[in-house]
Amino acid sequence: MFKITPLDNGLENVEGFFCGATNVGMRTKPINPETGSADGDVSFIRSTTPCDIAAVFTSNTFQAAPIKHFKQYPKHFQTDFILINAKNANAMTGEKGVEDIKTIMTVLSNKLAVLNPVMSSTGVIGYRLPVDKIVSAFDALAFDTANSQQTARAIMTTDAFKKEVAYKVELDDGTSFSIAAICKGAGMINPAMATMLCFIITDAAVPKEDMDTLLLDATEGSFNRISVDGDTSTNDTVMLLANKQSGVYNKAAFGEVLNKLMFELAMLVLKDGEGANKLVAFEVKGALSQEEAKKASMALSNSLLVKTALFGEDPNWGRIASTIGASGITCDDATLTIHYDDLLIYSNAFRELDKAREERAYVIMKQPSFKVTCDIGLGNESYTSYGCDLSYEYVKINAEYRT
Amino acid sequence: MFKITPLDNGLENVEGFFCGATNVGMRTKPINPETGSADGDVSFIRSTTPCDIAAVFTSNTFQAAPIKHFKQYPKHFQTDFILINAKNANAMTGEKGVEDIKTIMTVLSNKLAVLNPVMSSTGVIGYRLPVDKIVSAFDALAFDTANSQQTARAIMTTDAFKKEVAYKVELDDGTSFSIAAICKGAGMINPAMATMLCFIITDAAVPKEDMDTLLLDATEGSFNRISVDGDTSTNDTVMLLANKQSGVYNKAAFGEVLNKLMFELAMLVLKDGEGANKLVAFEVKGALSQEEAKKASMALSNSLLVKTALFGEDPNWGRIASTIGASGITCDDATLTIHYDDLLIYSNAFRELDKAREERAYVIMKQPSFKVTCDIGLGNESYTSYGCDLSYEYVKINAEYRT
Repeated sequence: MFKITPLDNGLENVEGFFCGATNVGMRTKPINPETGSADGDVSFIRSTTPCDIAAVFTSNTFQAAPIKHFKQYPKHFQTDFILINAKNANAMTGEKGVEDIKTIMTVLSNKLAVLNPVMSSTGVIGYRLPVDKIVSAFDALAFDTANSQQTARAIMTTDAFKKEVAYKVELDDGTSFSIAAICKGAGMINPAMATMLCFIITDAAVPKEDMDTLLLDATEGSFNRISVDGDTSTNDTVMLLANKQSGVYNKAAFGEVLNKLMFELAMLVLKDGEGANKLVAFEVKGALSQEEAKKASMALSNSLLVKTALFGEDPNWGRIASTIGASGITCDDATLTIHYDDLLIYSNAFRELDKAREERAYVIMKQPSFKVTCDIGLGNESYTSYGCDLSYEYVKINAEYRT
Repeated sequence: MFKITPLDNGLENVEGFFCGATNVGMRTKPINPETGSADGDVSFIRSTTPCDIAAVFTSNTFQAAPIKHFKQYPKHFQTDFILINAKNANAMTGEKGVEDIKTIMTVLSNKLAVLNPVMSSTGVIGYRLPVDKIVSAFDALAFDTANSQQTARAIMTTDAFKKEVAYKVELDDGTSFSIAAICKGAGMINPAMATMLCFIITDAAVPKEDMDTLLLDATEGSFNRISVDGDTSTNDTVMLLANKQSGVYNKAAFGEVLNKLMFELAMLVLKDGEGANKLVAFEVKGALSQEEAKKASMALSNSLLVKTALFGEDPNWGRIASTIGASGITCDDATLTIHYDDLLIYSNAFRELDKAREERAYVIMKQPSFKVTCDIGLGNESYTSYGCDLSYEYVKINAEYRT
């Protein structure tokens, strides 16, 4: 069919794209004290030719100003420039927030020929953008070079590590295209999107209509299935830009690679879940409908009691069962079974956990990732979501976020 | 109208009721290490005459064995005996769990004449009751005495303090009745009930049909409005027993006192929220419907990001706004206002928080309790729910619950 090769250096692999970052003084502390480097707070992604763009935005009613600004363009517009800032979400800033973006873009246009530039912001809600600081970036940014690592770091907020993925895809006829992405997000991660930004670029000649449907499908299979804390931000954005410079396209290959790339990024976000130490897949199967399977699976990945039991490495399957019972789906404790990886930990046949199983459960729970499978035993539908544990560190990070 | 007098010594104030507790070895550690006393793990509440009973149970599909056992009685049954145990929820124990209760009650009947005895359990899910230990309590319990404090302590699990309330109610004609309650609960507290048990006894001559409707109303105004962690247990139970020995009844007075008593208990449960330091009322008003007001209010009291901001005493109103936007109700950031107590902290008129308001907000947030009011500005409906902060201590308690 086709061959996929992972590549280093993220966004730098895609023909006709440039990217980079600079520090204009919004980020006053280094992200990692030990590295001490002055990471950027304003960054860009630019294409040398116009791109079609597909985007998925937060379901939060209070969409941030950059999203409102994006939506003022015609439905099918092309762009060649994304400007991104950290430390300030430009959310709940009203009409002024959108005007600030227009001011910034007017200054940009005087420096550089850009087509329908879009903006994306992440950070604290409720403060106007420092427009003067941001436009000062235009003198410092190197618009004709590509530095993926710099860009991936500049979009980080509470992230512990940068998130970059890139692939070269070779089709059977010897032609090839590239796809790459950077992503940020570590908290407020929730089904129905999260405080996460994800920028995907490709030189594949993917038609606009495929971009929209494939991006939605891949979002449902990735970012919509992860939960760190059940909150949904005002700024969540996934953008896919295609400049089509390779001239190459195969729908099946492109869709599969897009799914793979976004799933990997979603798992990186979850691994970086604020204070999280464990990544757990919650599969609910044997449900009467996919809707019910999803409801129970999401309830598990969002439950505080399940999350703290994971942190405590306590094989307390009662919390799993109780959460399924509380989710409101059709279920019966006589048909339910619960597995941790391959270990049957609850069934009507034995219920009470014997010492041997408990010991094995402890071993499974000590792993950095494992799977909880709940078979409702009533139907054939299933759904898997992904969650993490809740540690002291989560509380610390979020109690002290603004300081 | 009528006069309400609070009384010490909880359940001991109600004519014709006895109560007490003993330790049969399920609770192996003292509840408070500093007091070191051997608190009970099996307790009872008994009436000298048959009582009508009204009960509200958990909405969790997996209702615990004591609830299943209760429901095997005819719809309008009378009882004179409640047996309660801590440390074991008798949940997810299947038919065996109900059989164990019947075995226990058969042994009890051989010691003491009881009418339709009911049971209530709290503790870990998924283990059979230690029947032999529990029946050994029947030799130790003093069935003809009343010790409310002992009983209130014996039902505690992660509670930091016992919860007892009692009132004498004097009507204008000089007649009076008493009502008293004990309650436990500190975690898994959620709208739609919680891991909480509440036993209310009265000598008022309240008719059975009023008991049912008044208890439901009072539950909606109290326990259904508090949230510690958004989880819903298998065992939640509120029971109201009326032996009618006073011969006195006034519906308005009884309803008002029941509401007051249950609201106070709910606030005690919230104050005892695992690791909680702050009690916060979340009023949502100006909503298009009461359903929407409730949805947004509950979203606030359940949000991890709001809870951690409360713990950090961070006047980050952006998290409040973001949570309302994510709740899915009809809202507009131009009509929304947010107050902390009487301080306007967000409105379309100024949005960005100035230093003076921020300083005042810090002072408000340092209080042990305060109110967040969100006026949606679109309608006339309102709803208030009650939540608490999320601290390191919550994570610790729940990571180590079984150990």
